[in-house]
Amino acid sequence: MKFEFQNPTRLVFGAGSLARLGETVRAQGKRALLVTGGGSVKRTGVFDRAVASLKEAGVSVAECAGVEPNPRLSTVVRGARIARDNGCDVIVALGGGSTMDASKVMAAAVFYEGDPWDMIFHGQEKPRPPTRALPIVTVPTLAATGSEMNSGAVITDEKTTIKSFVRADCLYPRVALVDPELTMTVPPDQTAYGVCDLITHVTEGYLNGVDGTPLQDRWAEGTILTAIEWGPKAVANGRDVEARAQVQGASVVALNGWVQIATNAGFPVHTIEHTLSAHHDVAHGAGLAVVNPAWMRFAAKSRPARFAQFAERVFGVACRPGEEASCAREGIDRFEAFLRSIGCPTRLSQLEIGDDKLQQYARDALRIAHDQQGRLPGRPPMTEQDIVEVLRSAL
Amino acid sequence: MKFEFQNPTRLVFGAGSLARLGETVRAQGKRALLVTGGGSVKRTGVFDRAVASLKEAGVSVAECAGVEPNPRLSTVVRGARIARDNGCDVIVALGGGSTMDASKVMAAAVFYEGDPWDMIFHGQEKPRPPTRALPIVTVPTLAATGSEMNSGAVITDEKTTIKSFVRADCLYPRVALVDPELTMTVPPDQTAYGVCDLITHVTEGYLNGVDGTPLQDRWAEGTILTAIEWGPKAVANGRDVEARAQVQGASVVALNGWVQIATNAGFPVHTIEHTLSAHHDVAHGAGLAVVNPAWMRFAAKSRPARFAQFAERVFGVACRPGEEASCAREGIDRFEAFLRSIGCPTRLSQLEIGDDKLQQYARDALRIAHDQQGRLPGRPPMTEQDIVEVLRSAL
Repeated sequence: MKFEFQNPTRLVFGAGSLARLGETVRAQGKRALLVTGGGSVKRTGVFDRAVASLKEAGVSVAECAGVEPNPRLSTVVRGARIARDNGCDVIVALGGGSTMDASKVMAAAVFYEGDPWDMIFHGQEKPRPPTRALPIVTVPTLAATGSEMNSGAVITDEKTTIKSFVRADCLYPRVALVDPELTMTVPPDQTAYGVCDLITHVTEGYLNGVDGTPLQDRWAEGTILTAIEWGPKAVANGRDVEARAQVQGASVVALNGWVQIATNAGFPVHTIEHTLSAHHDVAHGAGLAVVNPAWMRFAAKSRPARFAQFAERVFGVACRPGEEASCAREGIDRFEAFLRSIGCPTRLSQLEIGDDKLQQYARDALRIAHDQQGRLPGRPPMTEQDIVEVLRSAL
Repeated sequence: MKFEFQNPTRLVFGAGSLARLGETVRAQGKRALLVTGGGSVKRTGVFDRAVASLKEAGVSVAECAGVEPNPRLSTVVRGARIARDNGCDVIVALGGGSTMDASKVMAAAVFYEGDPWDMIFHGQEKPRPPTRALPIVTVPTLAATGSEMNSGAVITDEKTTIKSFVRADCLYPRVALVDPELTMTVPPDQTAYGVCDLITHVTEGYLNGVDGTPLQDRWAEGTILTAIEWGPKAVANGRDVEARAQVQGASVVALNGWVQIATNAGFPVHTIEHTLSAHHDVAHGAGLAVVNPAWMRFAAKSRPARFAQFAERVFGVACRPGEEASCAREGIDRFEAFLRSIGCPTRLSQLEIGDDKLQQYARDALRIAHDQQGRLPGRPPMTEQDIVEVLRSAL
């Protein structure tokens, strides 16, 4: 087990934390670019509360509204221009994963020479991740992506319909201000997709990682168990602030690095899903709910013991020696049933995706990430045909 | 659930990491104070390898050797003087918890006006934790205290026989260079005490924390399960580098903050043990192995459900509703049996501690930490008589 890890983000967590936004941002800068998504923060009054808190602390505000669900490169360019034009010295991301991801890349694009798309890993020979960014403060309004406390971002180039990611130390937010009350107005379907997203962050490392990480396994299982216990409560009653807090706590740690540490895992399920939501107007978490169980059935064949452990420790499946394969299947069935029970789609048809572009999705996925044999990294690595067949099994 | 958390330490983990000491330290400074303990690092050649790596990277070395097992204030004063006299700009702690703790307080004492004992919380009305310290690089040679990646330190004032702690943001090491190979020469008894120490870090938060932290519970249980699985292997075969790595990974996370997050827990077992090892030449982990089960039997009476959860999830005790009290006892018995199985003492007599000073230990513990009613913080808070009785039950 070898790794290096540092996550310098300060996490400020708790119902009511939004009131501390002004002082928090003021410690980082005086002129904020306030980045938001489709307008829900304005309808709920959260935007006004944020602006009031910033102004009271003496922070001036420029606005970049309208970050779309799968944030586009052009939006990043637009936001960076607003930041530069207004001399902003700090970026505040108030929204879901898309808003936070776009904000991070804006923060870097302010200083970046050349095309910001060069920062994003999309199969180019020499990616140029950023080394400098404005300080970022994240204020998530959705428990899902974990973007509030990590150094990653996912952006779509609308010209090529490629959706891919960047990771760089300079993109760690200075502060993640996590106020579970802000998620109370998230509707049940989006809440469920968030639960699926956070669980899938954990299963990627857990099921694709190297052998010999027993502590990470335990933490991963614990995070999934927490999401399975509290997710349905948050879906059933969005005003249950305790459930909202537990789900959001789980979503923060699901991708802030600790659960994945030293696992060196590929993220095949995410990579495949990104090609779907690049081509279709699909919520990322909904796409994951379709792809993850289908991928699991494919991957379990070559690693039944690991999936049997998942079945046993997460779903309490009693697993006798020699029965790993059937246990594995039982665990995956229960996982899929859980996703359905909270209202997630589990078939491509529910996303209105047919079989006409499966080869295209597979090719796009392999363009974003591939090993030396041209396969999608994961356990096992996937050929183009493997990806097509996984997607076909989920039609 | 409300909390703030930031742990900025960079963790460099893996067998062979010692070779990177020079470059790691050079990024922080040019003149290192190299702090060591009783001499084992010299016998094993680790000291020479460390010095060679530092010199190769162009770092000059001043030495502060001989930090004792329960590090004394006078040693802190001595180290800070050596650092000042040699113009050191970085502190390298190469040793166990004592060496790392002493190094942290030396790093602050270099800048501290007045008596360094004022930094340590020991019941004074206005503690003055440090706000500035030299950069610290920790290189643990023992998997136990977790000091390598947190902001705490424990120091003994030999004049008053008070052993207590300080926590301050400036004491977070810049880098924790964790090389499990360095722990391979630790003898079985010290290895076992380290396992007990790390488990006790986790049980303090788990058993003394607030209600409503289900994710932290899971991570705590996962950390304990990992220690219980791998600890005996490290005790049985010190050269098992895989076991050493797993135990050390668990010891790092047991006290780097994540498991305790938002639990707001008192550390009664530690506080009581500190009074023992302040008065007697007792290894901290050995003292904990005696105090923790005795304390658990006391605390379980007022919180049987929590201890039943511990029994069920960590030791697989099947627990039927209404049987929490007996389940709780069964779990504590199994925990104590585990400690004995790896060679830990579980009675005060094995530490050659009798009943003549029980009242004194209790008074010392309450001097270090007490609530407004004068009780030792924890669940439940403990009176002087409670502490005496817990210790008496462990005679």
